[in-house]
Amino acid sequence: MPLLTSDAKGVYPIAPTPFFDDGRIDTASIDRMMDFYHSIGATGVTVLGQLGEAQKLEHTESLEVASQVIGRADKLPVIVGVSAPGFAAMRALTHEVMARGAAGVMIAPPNTLRTDDQIVNYYRQAVEAIGADVPFVLQDYPLTFSVQMSVGVIKRIVDELPSCVMLKHEDWPGLEKISSLRALEKEGKLRHISILCGNNGLFLDYEVERGADGANTGYAFPDMLVDIVRLNAQGDREAAHDLFDAHLPLLRYEQQPGVGLAVRKYILMRRGVLSSAAQRKPAAPMSAVARTEVDHLLARLAKKDPRAGKLVG
Amino acid sequence: MPLLTSDAKGVYPIAPTPFFDDGRIDTASIDRMMDFYHSIGATGVTVLGQLGEAQKLEHTESLEVASQVIGRADKLPVIVGVSAPGFAAMRALTHEVMARGAAGVMIAPPNTLRTDDQIVNYYRQAVEAIGADVPFVLQDYPLTFSVQMSVGVIKRIVDELPSCVMLKHEDWPGLEKISSLRALEKEGKLRHISILCGNNGLFLDYEVERGADGANTGYAFPDMLVDIVRLNAQGDREAAHDLFDAHLPLLRYEQQPGVGLAVRKYILMRRGVLSSAAQRKPAAPMSAVARTEVDHLLARLAKKDPRAGKLVG
Amino acid sequence: MPLLTSDAKGVYPIAPTPFFDDGRIDTASIDRMMDFYHSIGATGVTVLGQLGEAQKLEHTESLEVASQVIGRADKLPVIVGVSAPGFAAMRALTHEVMARGAAGVMIAPPNTLRTDDQIVNYYRQAVEAIGADVPFVLQDYPLTFSVQMSVGVIKRIVDELPSCVMLKHEDWPGLEKISSLRALEKEGKLRHISILCGNNGLFLDYEVERGADGANTGYAFPDMLVDIVRLNAQGDREAAHDLFDAHLPLLRYEQQPGVGLAVRKYILMRRGVLSSAAQRKPAAPMSAVARTEVDHLLARLAKKDPRAGKLVG
Amino acid sequence: MPLLTSDAKGVYPIAPTPFFDDGRIDTASIDRMMDFYHSIGATGVTVLGQLGEAQKLEHTESLEVASQVIGRADKLPVIVGVSAPGFAAMRALTHEVMARGAAGVMIAPPNTLRTDDQIVNYYRQAVEAIGADVPFVLQDYPLTFSVQMSVGVIKRIVDELPSCVMLKHEDWPGLEKISSLRALEKEGKLRHISILCGNNGLFLDYEVERGADGANTGYAFPDMLVDIVRLNAQGDREAAHDLFDAHLPLLRYEQQPGVGLAVRKYILMRRGVLSSAAQRKPAAPMSAVARTEVDHLLARLAKKDPRAGKLVG
Repeated sequence: MPLLTSDAKGVYPIAPTPFFDDGRIDTASIDRMMDFYHSIGATGVTVLGQLGEAQKLEHTESLEVASQVIGRADKLPVIVGVSAPGFAAMRALTHEVMARGAAGVMIAPPNTLRTDDQIVNYYRQAVEAIGADVPFVLQDYPLTFSVQMSVGVIKRIVDELPSCVMLKHEDWPGLEKISSLRALEKEGKLRHISILCGNNGLFLDYEVERGADGANTGYAFPDMLVDIVRLNAQGDREAAHDLFDAHLPLLRYEQQPGVGLAVRKYILMRRGVLSSAAQRKPAAPMSAVARTEVDHLLARLAKKDPRAGKLVG
Repeated sequence: MPLLTSDAKGVYPIAPTPFFDDGRIDTASIDRMMDFYHSIGATGVTVLGQLGEAQKLEHTESLEVASQVIGRADKLPVIVGVSAPGFAAMRALTHEVMARGAAGVMIAPPNTLRTDDQIVNYYRQAVEAIGADVPFVLQDYPLTFSVQMSVGVIKRIVDELPSCVMLKHEDWPGLEKISSLRALEKEGKLRHISILCGNNGLFLDYEVERGADGANTGYAFPDMLVDIVRLNAQGDREAAHDLFDAHLPLLRYEQQPGVGLAVRKYILMRRGVLSSAAQRKPAAPMSAVARTEVDHLLARLAKKDPRAGKLVG
Repeated sequence: MPLLTSDAKGVYPIAPTPFFDDGRIDTASIDRMMDFYHSIGATGVTVLGQLGEAQKLEHTESLEVASQVIGRADKLPVIVGVSAPGFAAMRALTHEVMARGAAGVMIAPPNTLRTDDQIVNYYRQAVEAIGADVPFVLQDYPLTFSVQMSVGVIKRIVDELPSCVMLKHEDWPGLEKISSLRALEKEGKLRHISILCGNNGLFLDYEVERGADGANTGYAFPDMLVDIVRLNAQGDREAAHDLFDAHLPLLRYEQQPGVGLAVRKYILMRRGVLSSAAQRKPAAPMSAVARTEVDHLLARLAKKDPRAGKLVG
Repeated sequence: MPLLTSDAKGVYPIAPTPFFDDGRIDTASIDRMMDFYHSIGATGVTVLGQLGEAQKLEHTESLEVASQVIGRADKLPVIVGVSAPGFAAMRALTHEVMARGAAGVMIAPPNTLRTDDQIVNYYRQAVEAIGADVPFVLQDYPLTFSVQMSVGVIKRIVDELPSCVMLKHEDWPGLEKISSLRALEKEGKLRHISILCGNNGLFLDYEVERGADGANTGYAFPDMLVDIVRLNAQGDREAAHDLFDAHLPLLRYEQQPGVGLAVRKYILMRRGVLSSAAQRKPAAPMSAVARTEVDHLLARLAKKDPRAGKLVG
């Protein structure tokens, strides 16, 4: 499989890890999910991220999930989350998934980093550990990781580490960060990297207008994200916003920390992608009231997007 | 003026502090803002919160702003933010504003609190400082203050401190917290307190359904918030959601930390309430691109809510 | 090997993991280190703690180190650090080391925990994962983990989880916490648990007087810690303080976060226990000036404790 | 009074604020304390720091305390802590105390700062607020403020803001930071600033050897700190360490966060400087056991330093 490059565009869904109710990995759902991603025009996929409950998998399970996803990915590049408390485990997992055909890895910063130097130094050491030939995605997600990367820090990392090919942009607020990075690029002061946006797509409508290349997030309607990127590329601005706004009430609900994963898995189950919404423990379950709220949001969405209609039996 | 009670309902806008471009306080705008709040059916108002740039005012200015708001409030109860690094300053400001006719005060936790005992103890000491006869609002806003209050901690505070009459609910996610508090109340295990929601109203559509009494936040269309509370009370569920969803793209944009205040002041200026969008330093300004995005959001909103249309000249 | 119980007393050194300069594990030094611990009267040993660079080991290496230590421990109980970002990895490592003869495991809290309920719930889930039959050590180390456990939280964990048999006490300041826990025990409100103190022993002189059962830390003169516990038990208060005070300048130096491990390994190398002071990357190295300071501290200590004299020159 | 310059040396005790048991400010003790500082050879004094319970004073009280200290300081330069949640309050207090004869101000960073740019920008704005003509002390105290300033950040601040004349060095560990700053100075890359050390002097023995100019901390035997600086300047290295080591057991005890202030005030009371050890609420009191421990430490110290003997009645 080809390696990830800084030209990556479009939508790389963050794949959840499907489980049966008893906690076993549901391999049939993995295949169905990958077929779904192919069918909607995803341009890549990321596995073993936070959303993928990576921390609840044993090492061999992580490898199995990654291997199955890679095997079913056909030509889609697969990014594997390899964040780990130590570089030894990060290196081991990286080498194993690259050997199986991964296109690159994603590395989140440990939440103890504070100063600019600490952040840059961490990625320097990570690259030393995994090898400078492995493309990596810089995950900038201060809301969850408590690590704040200024534009200057991202520039230092991009300048110093050629294997950094993508920014998973999840700063919040983050619109100006995209503009600043693209302005540096325009001025010839920063090489081009791919910027794919996370945060469940909460600002994707304007992020693509600011210069982002697409989305890298777990919203349960990745087909809508694909549409947004396409409509924006075509210049159909208002059509993009109309579709986005129709999804925003649900998207916002799904973006809530903790309970968000339960919502996503529930919708993916209702869409026929997953056979169960089960998470491994520890999990933030969805209350009965929350489920009726999600059903309500889906029913309202169905009036505007037939893809939600199909599942409202 | 009557004191704040646990029966408070409706919408208490968080008032910004109007400045001229040179940093002086714009008292004419304060009057206009208060008249605006009266005209839209607000049931109270909160001044000198975070949104009110309280930390950028000198002590005498804080008093002047609070006094003017109270003077123009007529029968609307006025809550004054008195959060301070020390209890001496908190007590002093509390006594001064209560003497001028404030209905109660709002107290945010210092962001160094961690354990349940530390949080409860802090509010115990705060009440000891300001006096048990001053009604206070418990501000639960972990996203900004990094202090996490469990339902158990809120219960302890409500049980122990009778002057706690309102929860400014800004936990995120927070829907289950409202349900849990109201369930405790139903079971007779917790006295009733008013729950008004913040976070710019990002979940107000479902928060009122969960048992919240209204909103206490700074969205630049507080008239919409008033409508949501009213429509929900009338049982017009879908109408409430239709209106809410029309505002959600803008509301979400405004809810961004940092830049959000600039957006709010800009819209309030465009609505004719404030004469300037100026903030005192340090301020997160709104970029030129951001302003075009807000204009775009307003133009789109105007198609659904005539109140946004008026200002799109 | 017998399981760890709440009667544990004395000194359980936190064992470093010996490396060669090229990063390989130095098994001969592990044997020598274990013989050293036997010779000085240690009553147990802890491996794969933070100090043991556990996060820099691959899974199989962790198992090998733990196995060798257990094999050489004779009758000394061995506690294995099993803290992990997810319960799957924690359970796997626990089962493997218990099968090899570990006496119990040590679990540190993830640094995202804030409320009392979150902390108690985490340990509840951890016990569910590793099994209620595995004795575990509760690590209370807010300086490093940013998790603050009140006396009430510790009581809840001890009450609810019978397999919690020891507190690794590293709160700072922490003297009153020991007194509070022992007072609860005296009043019959808390079952007895072993309290062994960390923080390099910085307050061990008074901790044992307050009711601690000993030390569980990495100071490079664990023989001194053994003496302190013994002298205190014998009632030789001033002799205990004289010895402690002689070591305090060095002990304080070694207790510095980051550089502390380099100092410990350097001294253990000079004492002939380790063949190298090497750490795996990422490591905080000791500067040339720091080394002269440590040599200076050792030279001064040698005037009062012959054990430091042996290695000087 | 002359302004603070980057040539400041020696010991600037951090003055506590003396209270009577009923919470009133004890002005006679302020005079006695200032006379004591003169008598021991202090070269300056800092008031209204954290240790001075600045946050528990009302604005007018802060001014009164600062004024009295300045009035009694004779030629000793007085630094006033002006850290505040907003720049308006910081500017107001700064102008008032400078008008009364303060030599400079000390500014701690708000604990929300994370990135290098945020830290530099904060001090840039602070200087804009207080005026570029007011000398200020940069307080680098990550243990309390959670703000980590790298050497690079300090350099940026010193380079950009000429009114930064002193670093209150309280990083921990911090020895290498002193060496790095002095190395930059030697290489001509950084102008000279005064470095006075805090953290109760826990590493002062080596800090002065590394290039620090003295101490700026609250240890209850500032006369000992003066001796250390003098002995080091004279080249009496071992005498300096002997004296320091004699004090270290007590110094370490006093350095504990929270309870440390109670210990300091208690010892200053026993030394006849303060008439009471009272703190304003909220205060971490000293338990009865802790008091016996402090008495024990003083009794042991008295065997080596007659200044402790005098008070052991």
